[in-house]
Amino acid sequence: MTLLDRTRGRIPTLDRTVAERTQRLLDDKTKPRRSLGRLEEIACRVAAMRGEERPALPVKAIVVMAADHGVTAEGVSAYPQEVTRQMVLNFVSGGAAINVLARQAGARLVVVDMGVAGELAPADGLLLRRIAPGTRNMAREPAMSRAQALLAVETGITIACELAGSGVTLLGIGEMGIGNSTAASALTAVLTGTPVAHVTGRGTGVADEVWRHKVEVIERAIACNRPDPDDALDVVAKLGGFEIAGLAGVVVGAAACRVPVVVDGLIAAAAALVAARLAPPAASFLLASHRSVEPGHPPLLAALDLVPLLDLGLRLGEGTGAALALGLVDAALRILHEMASFAAAGVADSGA
Amino acid sequence: MTLLDRTRGRIPTLDRTVAERTQRLLDDKTKPRRSLGRLEEIACRVAAMRGEERPALPVKAIVVMAADHGVTAEGVSAYPQEVTRQMVLNFVSGGAAINVLARQAGARLVVVDMGVAGELAPADGLLLRRIAPGTRNMAREPAMSRAQALLAVETGITIACELAGSGVTLLGIGEMGIGNSTAASALTAVLTGTPVAHVTGRGTGVADEVWRHKVEVIERAIACNRPDPDDALDVVAKLGGFEIAGLAGVVVGAAACRVPVVVDGLIAAAAALVAARLAPPAASFLLASHRSVEPGHPPLLAALDLVPLLDLGLRLGEGTGAALALGLVDAALRILHEMASFAAAGVADSGA
Repeated sequence: MTLLDRTRGRIPTLDRTVAERTQRLLDDKTKPRRSLGRLEEIACRVAAMRGEERPALPVKAIVVMAADHGVTAEGVSAYPQEVTRQMVLNFVSGGAAINVLARQAGARLVVVDMGVAGELAPADGLLLRRIAPGTRNMAREPAMSRAQALLAVETGITIACELAGSGVTLLGIGEMGIGNSTAASALTAVLTGTPVAHVTGRGTGVADEVWRHKVEVIERAIACNRPDPDDALDVVAKLGGFEIAGLAGVVVGAAACRVPVVVDGLIAAAAALVAARLAPPAASFLLASHRSVEPGHPPLLAALDLVPLLDLGLRLGEGTGAALALGLVDAALRILHEMASFAAAGVADSGA
Repeated sequence: MTLLDRTRGRIPTLDRTVAERTQRLLDDKTKPRRSLGRLEEIACRVAAMRGEERPALPVKAIVVMAADHGVTAEGVSAYPQEVTRQMVLNFVSGGAAINVLARQAGARLVVVDMGVAGELAPADGLLLRRIAPGTRNMAREPAMSRAQALLAVETGITIACELAGSGVTLLGIGEMGIGNSTAASALTAVLTGTPVAHVTGRGTGVADEVWRHKVEVIERAIACNRPDPDDALDVVAKLGGFEIAGLAGVVVGAAACRVPVVVDGLIAAAAALVAARLAPPAASFLLASHRSVEPGHPPLLAALDLVPLLDLGLRLGEGTGAALALGLVDAALRILHEMASFAAAGVADSGA
């Protein structure tokens, strides 16, 4: 029995009565019923995930997994592959957008090398968990072996469980990997049964012909690898990336530890859908942070039955949208803890 | 010459080249161009408002103005009038939603009694600036005199300028006043030329017949007072509230001091539109925080040419949406200050 099998067996089913008790606590706060809208919904959902009607204020971490993609050989990205490694170094030295936003959110940042091409020296806050120095070119062969995919997923499970063990109670997930929107679009097309052209983005400053090339590369990758849509590990092995498989594992592991996961944009959502296919009960531990401008994002959100909290036109990745949304989850739980009740404040309650 | 006249004369016109310089700073950060979407837009807009390409991280305050409304005699609210005063006491003792969210945002909370019915003792963080113990019933007579409206506006101007003088560089505005959604809907109908039924909300647990009554009360108030839509002071005097006129003054005063104002929901937006009609250049100092579920909100946002940052189904008021959005403005400016440039981080810039 694999770690994945054991972990998925440990994911609890949510008890709806916990969320109902949380809603009753909120209904007794000095405000019209449900007038804090989605903040109240988040508080109830997190309570159900944590299994307690008034969960403690969250201890937050953001896991950013990085890896390289052989499919960049097809010329699908505006950036050279070296940028993945350069950005990991930027994460380590604290100068990237996710550093700024994680600091603001009060979240610990955990950067994981899941398979970056080129050497990375050990550093504080950087986990070296490289499966291989980048995937193979999925347009010609499977991006990775099934064994590598399982190893990447289990690496993510272990990281999530270690974070939960160290006291983390709320996770954000993000990624870095030049070429990984191509992988995520391919996964989305296969896992949601949507035509490739509908889930493939123009990326940054990508002209029509480059976009058509990207669609064609993805279609070729699907045609040559013939992934089985009912076998998520097969799909992520053939079309995914080490960071995507790793983040899927983080979701599965977090769910097993009752840790809610705030999902970033397209690529993190593709990882979340892989997790939900590997371990369906894990889906109930997800919160969507923001609506990406990437066209593959809506079908992923629909498949996960998630409605994002933010719609700010973000398309950066790294977990930046997740970091911004952590503040809203925090706000929801602070309301639950810190607001006065009608009786305590001496405020008349109309019951409205 | 009144304080209002002098203050509107001091509102600067925004220099677009400041925002352009800010965008160039952002374009040099280690991320694809514009990939932080609306965060970048906010940074540029705040820079133009502050008149410097890299404005300091904000010193934040939220002004919550409270007042009572004579129109509650018509039975338009689910809550009794005493709740206004009770909630002000709740603000003072720190138990309301806005206390929780202002603390989270790191914003000083300034509560202003602009005209609450019933006595309020002096307290820390509470400004006693009462114009009268509530407005008159606008369904029968003008809510206040023109002199009272001017006094309320100028009270707001003074508060904003004092806050700016004490170092505040970013303001949120919110309100409390049982019955004030009726006043705000009336203002919205007149100032935007929208039928009353289109801008009147159902409120909380309000049945169809209560809603029809609310529409009828507002129509009666407009018919009996005959406000001049081209004279915002006349409109706010006849249909407004002391807290609404006061917040309009806060916007005018903040604009004169180059302080951006983050607007909460329906009622704060109605105040912002009054400000924009009293002093059109003040409109360029506004940011909309969230999209309220109130039907009067979209026409106000359209008239102000604002697109809100959040859409969380909030309908509480108090400045709660503004408090949540302050965190996003903070994030935008932190990106500008703390992110590394491509050159400093040694990251290849594709120019994309």
